[in-house]
Amino acid sequence: MTRRELNVALIGYQFMGRAHANAWRQVGAFFEPAATPVLKVVCGRNAEGVAAAAPRLGFAEHAVDFEEVVARPDIDVVDVCTPGDSHLEVVLAAARAGKAILCEKPLANNVPQAEAMLAAVREAGVVHMLCHNYRRAPAVQLAKRWIESGRLGRIHHFRGTYLQDWIVDPEFPRVWRLEKSRAGSGALGDIASHSLDLARFLVGEITEVSGLLETFVAERPLPEGGGRGAVDVDDAALALVRFENGAIGSVEGSRFAPGRKNHNRFEINGSRGSLVFDLERMNELQIYEEDGPDSGFRTVLVTEESHPYVAAWWPPGHILGYEHTFTHTILDFIEGVVAGTSPAPDFEDGVRNQRLLAAIERSHETRRWQSV
Amino acid sequence: MTRRELNVALIGYQFMGRAHANAWRQVGAFFEPAATPVLKVVCGRNAEGVAAAAPRLGFAEHAVDFEEVVARPDIDVVDVCTPGDSHLEVVLAAARAGKAILCEKPLANNVPQAEAMLAAVREAGVVHMLCHNYRRAPAVQLAKRWIESGRLGRIHHFRGTYLQDWIVDPEFPRVWRLEKSRAGSGALGDIASHSLDLARFLVGEITEVSGLLETFVAERPLPEGGGRGAVDVDDAALALVRFENGAIGSVEGSRFAPGRKNHNRFEINGSRGSLVFDLERMNELQIYEEDGPDSGFRTVLVTEESHPYVAAWWPPGHILGYEHTFTHTILDFIEGVVAGTSPAPDFEDGVRNQRLLAAIERSHETRRWQSV
Amino acid sequence: MTRRELNVALIGYQFMGRAHANAWRQVGAFFEPAATPVLKVVCGRNAEGVAAAAPRLGFAEHAVDFEEVVARPDIDVVDVCTPGDSHLEVVLAAARAGKAILCEKPLANNVPQAEAMLAAVREAGVVHMLCHNYRRAPAVQLAKRWIESGRLGRIHHFRGTYLQDWIVDPEFPRVWRLEKSRAGSGALGDIASHSLDLARFLVGEITEVSGLLETFVAERPLPEGGGRGAVDVDDAALALVRFENGAIGSVEGSRFAPGRKNHNRFEINGSRGSLVFDLERMNELQIYEEDGPDSGFRTVLVTEESHPYVAAWWPPGHILGYEHTFTHTILDFIEGVVAGTSPAPDFEDGVRNQRLLAAIERSHETRRWQSV
Amino acid sequence: MTRRELNVALIGYQFMGRAHANAWRQVGAFFEPAATPVLKVVCGRNAEGVAAAAPRLGFAEHAVDFEEVVARPDIDVVDVCTPGDSHLEVVLAAARAGKAILCEKPLANNVPQAEAMLAAVREAGVVHMLCHNYRRAPAVQLAKRWIESGRLGRIHHFRGTYLQDWIVDPEFPRVWRLEKSRAGSGALGDIASHSLDLARFLVGEITEVSGLLETFVAERPLPEGGGRGAVDVDDAALALVRFENGAIGSVEGSRFAPGRKNHNRFEINGSRGSLVFDLERMNELQIYEEDGPDSGFRTVLVTEESHPYVAAWWPPGHILGYEHTFTHTILDFIEGVVAGTSPAPDFEDGVRNQRLLAAIERSHETRRWQSV
Repeated sequence: MTRRELNVALIGYQFMGRAHANAWRQVGAFFEPAATPVLKVVCGRNAEGVAAAAPRLGFAEHAVDFEEVVARPDIDVVDVCTPGDSHLEVVLAAARAGKAILCEKPLANNVPQAEAMLAAVREAGVVHMLCHNYRRAPAVQLAKRWIESGRLGRIHHFRGTYLQDWIVDPEFPRVWRLEKSRAGSGALGDIASHSLDLARFLVGEITEVSGLLETFVAERPLPEGGGRGAVDVDDAALALVRFENGAIGSVEGSRFAPGRKNHNRFEINGSRGSLVFDLERMNELQIYEEDGPDSGFRTVLVTEESHPYVAAWWPPGHILGYEHTFTHTILDFIEGVVAGTSPAPDFEDGVRNQRLLAAIERSHETRRWQSV
Repeated sequence: MTRRELNVALIGYQFMGRAHANAWRQVGAFFEPAATPVLKVVCGRNAEGVAAAAPRLGFAEHAVDFEEVVARPDIDVVDVCTPGDSHLEVVLAAARAGKAILCEKPLANNVPQAEAMLAAVREAGVVHMLCHNYRRAPAVQLAKRWIESGRLGRIHHFRGTYLQDWIVDPEFPRVWRLEKSRAGSGALGDIASHSLDLARFLVGEITEVSGLLETFVAERPLPEGGGRGAVDVDDAALALVRFENGAIGSVEGSRFAPGRKNHNRFEINGSRGSLVFDLERMNELQIYEEDGPDSGFRTVLVTEESHPYVAAWWPPGHILGYEHTFTHTILDFIEGVVAGTSPAPDFEDGVRNQRLLAAIERSHETRRWQSV
Repeated sequence: MTRRELNVALIGYQFMGRAHANAWRQVGAFFEPAATPVLKVVCGRNAEGVAAAAPRLGFAEHAVDFEEVVARPDIDVVDVCTPGDSHLEVVLAAARAGKAILCEKPLANNVPQAEAMLAAVREAGVVHMLCHNYRRAPAVQLAKRWIESGRLGRIHHFRGTYLQDWIVDPEFPRVWRLEKSRAGSGALGDIASHSLDLARFLVGEITEVSGLLETFVAERPLPEGGGRGAVDVDDAALALVRFENGAIGSVEGSRFAPGRKNHNRFEINGSRGSLVFDLERMNELQIYEEDGPDSGFRTVLVTEESHPYVAAWWPPGHILGYEHTFTHTILDFIEGVVAGTSPAPDFEDGVRNQRLLAAIERSHETRRWQSV
Repeated sequence: MTRRELNVALIGYQFMGRAHANAWRQVGAFFEPAATPVLKVVCGRNAEGVAAAAPRLGFAEHAVDFEEVVARPDIDVVDVCTPGDSHLEVVLAAARAGKAILCEKPLANNVPQAEAMLAAVREAGVVHMLCHNYRRAPAVQLAKRWIESGRLGRIHHFRGTYLQDWIVDPEFPRVWRLEKSRAGSGALGDIASHSLDLARFLVGEITEVSGLLETFVAERPLPEGGGRGAVDVDDAALALVRFENGAIGSVEGSRFAPGRKNHNRFEINGSRGSLVFDLERMNELQIYEEDGPDSGFRTVLVTEESHPYVAAWWPPGHILGYEHTFTHTILDFIEGVVAGTSPAPDFEDGVRNQRLLAAIERSHETRRWQSV
């Protein structure tokens, strides 16, 4: 039996495009996805750049006009890896063309955009998925298993921090990620949104928030030279949160934490145990089970054959890296496309995440708790 | 030259009384305090109990009436180790009697009490000190040195959590610490107050807060048997905070974190480096200094002769324990008594801490930020 | 300018074959190797197995007769990934055919075989390289940089342990790795040999050894069923070693260490600092530099752009996995093939490593120190 | 009922004398020993020094002539804390006088001395105990419990390292610990002997050894000035060992490991689990129990009420320090004196330990394995 093929168009070829392309290339070499991806065309605004990238990324063709690309009848799947401010138009076009859509997070730069995208994919009846890749780190999936098994009991606390340090130097330039018109927000949408997604995935819906945003360095050198420009996004975003199920928590994203490179950490406390995860040691899950005086947090190396996604890779103790989280996402997206169902997180999750970001901003402005 | 003697009256002989008594006994065996403490009398409400405790604690006499004790002309120093609801009356009596006063934290159960105590010691002109013992862990003092040296740059973030797990079982009894009338508050005043004190000590004054309190288990078995009683204090307390100097932060105290026994942790991020401390490994300070690609958090074992308080103890690598933080506190208190100056934290710090707790409670009730 | 192509024949398609195939596929997508590898043919004894593997591994053709394959005029490079007992014949054939050869470690099952292979590649004048992949973990390369920079001073100690636990259960079957005739030795050649290679790479040549071998479980169920078979290799191998440069050390490999999955750890102490590496956290290097009382082991996340091999991958804090060490090996092998020079470790390193294993065995038998 | 009193004579008042004196003072304040120690007299060669030390150490009297002191009829117990070269004469005198004897490790500077001491206490019929204080860290006792419970299964491996760095600077002076005539040996007797004692305590008797001694810096400045003197002890000592019960292991002591201050670490692997201890984090025991794919090393904070010795101290999570190991030793010694039985480790353990050191030295010289 030959497996069905899926023709893929990748929109965007920078950092995220590279990560997705790698996953599309690798998924079939390790897993047996329900369909075989064919890397048809990569699309980018810069003709030269995308032409150079195509062979390295493994795509057969390259193009500059995303509208043409997503409308091509031979394309089955559109994978959106551009910056957030262009997600809307690409997704609307792809939905109109009836393509299955994978979109890199954040879904959009604001709630109305996100809602429009969700409406579009629903109306078009296409499969849609948001790429919050960290959900598919094996250790995060194992955390999910533990919570769902009930072995941790009732969940009381979520504590999520996503810390980086790349702009702590005040002379670091005012890149596009520091412009509200392009990035939507700063640490809030870029990294705190990952913590919020993990909170929703692992604990449940958040009903209200108290937020705090701060910009420590208000002006920076322009990247193109010639003076300084204003930073109109947050350098750090903090929030207290309440969950529907009675749990409480805190979430923080900051780009001002020296020594924290990609420190996406969470701690969850239930009535019978606790979990700790840190992306910088993403092959490990710390588990505490209450079992008398000789209990303790144990470091589980999540590399056993029975651990989520691991059987496809290497023997125990042979660790995976950052890029593998995308391969797992693409795997599940392919399954979804073949089955005709949208895997979580889908665009509805994207809308909910966007509403959380908006509620935090609103809370920051009004200085009071806000319902989501 | 013979050193002056200080006659000590210890009020309270339970957990804190034991810790203070040990410090009074030990301080002269390792340090050379400016005066020699003489352990005169320990006072407690239960005649039998205090009689049995006196010889073990090293006190010559025992008594049940604190008013008589603090008025004794041969007493120089009153050390208050009773539960918070009796601090006010003991301190007022001791101040009236002109004694130097060391008072265990929290200073009081509410702001008016704390303010009355501060007014009393000021009026009496006596030396006063609050025992927030963790300030005097060598690693915390080393953190202070680093911040004051400027090597961490401008401070942007404080992240303090004090996590325990001793009441996570819903069948754990409704002990006095879970009664508002006796304990003032729950995790807020008992442990989050430590994090707030460290925040003030290391980063500076807090100007406004957004607080969240939660009681997960609203009713528990009465300790004396015979049914269940209401829990009217918080099981967990969280707050977002803003500091006078522009830093922002979060503080959390919870007794519902399985596996966290006495996890008093803070992380501080400055513009050039970061610090991490965890009381369960209190002989270590994690320091990050930005110095190129081979930088990293380093674990400093704070046991070198030049580290704060360490020269008096053991060679490098021979660690200290919990009780030593009290010995250091008593040492500095004695110096203060002899010099006639109140060492930090003093009762004014106690008032400020109490105002922080009150602001967090107010914020919780009003669901908005509150100035302190 | 079009880059030269290198036609690759992969001999063996199991665990190691998969790891090498992945590296051959990936190297050009992230690096710009001096030649472009073309995955021509994969060869294995089982016709059905190798036919199924070829497309997944990305090879165009498959074959069962390695002699034919290595003799093909269109093949430039032979990559040997079969078990150790067949390395000799494959390498001899490939050398005769004038191919550049990459051979998975251990080079051979004994010293005479290894010497014959070295003689063959020298006589044929072909490029040869041994795949000790862990040398090319970025953190191990960073360790090398630190030692060579002199910042650690004179090296005094090497402490290498490679611990696993997969055969600690006495009912685990007598697989081929537990048969001397096929595997050459047990933990000694399989894992202690990695530690010895790292010792030689980082510290220098070893001149004498005192060895200890132990087989804890002498008989195990046969994998094919039908009774039990003798284990005639070591379960654990330990050695004390002396280096040419005056350093001393210890090396241990064991498959009987519960909880240690792939715990390839070393600690190196110099006169001015120390290093610690652990493969299970392979993106980290612990560095200690003596610099006064606030010194401490620091955890360097070896994911910065300037770290060895890292620029080709992801931003700081986005970690690599086990498989990347092979990609780096293949990269350097390609450079060697194009330049006509054999990259380290080459077959001479393989011979030296084999002599170390032999000396440890000899020492174990004679119960005395042995020169290498 | 009044408890019996034990009059104590402490011989030696430096580092070890301070540690023992503290334990004698503290034991009754936290535990309820079977007899109450009375700190009668401290003895030292330097009249002025010992006179100054007595009040700080809490001893009523001081003396310079140990022979007189140990012969005093009012003395019940002699505690020997002098350097190793004087243990013999003090112990012989104390035994002759019929006193119970606690002797700091190492028992002696060589085997004949140790044997003479054992013979003397046996002939005199007095209680004798060797102070290997680390046996009585609560975490080490917990390790013992786990091994004895059988939950770790059959023990296969012991890996003990005791690393320090205080003489790595070649200009560090030639202090008495670097003179064979006074110290007996270097790292071997001072620190590797601790690892050997822990090996015997936890795993069992060692039957044969292969040893390696090294002196990296052969000459150092004399402490009193005026030139350089030879170092005739080892800077580092390594050994492979075989245990009576079939386990194998390695032991290393070094004073040349930068960053390791008092790194007394062991790892033990059994057939069903593993243990790791590190003195620098002496309140923790790492335990691994094989229990499926979600197993992992867990960090047990050994501060629970049911943990060895802990109930007498503080609540969970409130850690103990170095000095507490001596308090526990003294506690058990007092119990032994009252019961008339010698607690382990006793002088026979001292002789066995000394024979191990001698066998390692013999092995080093002969370059072959030696029976103990």
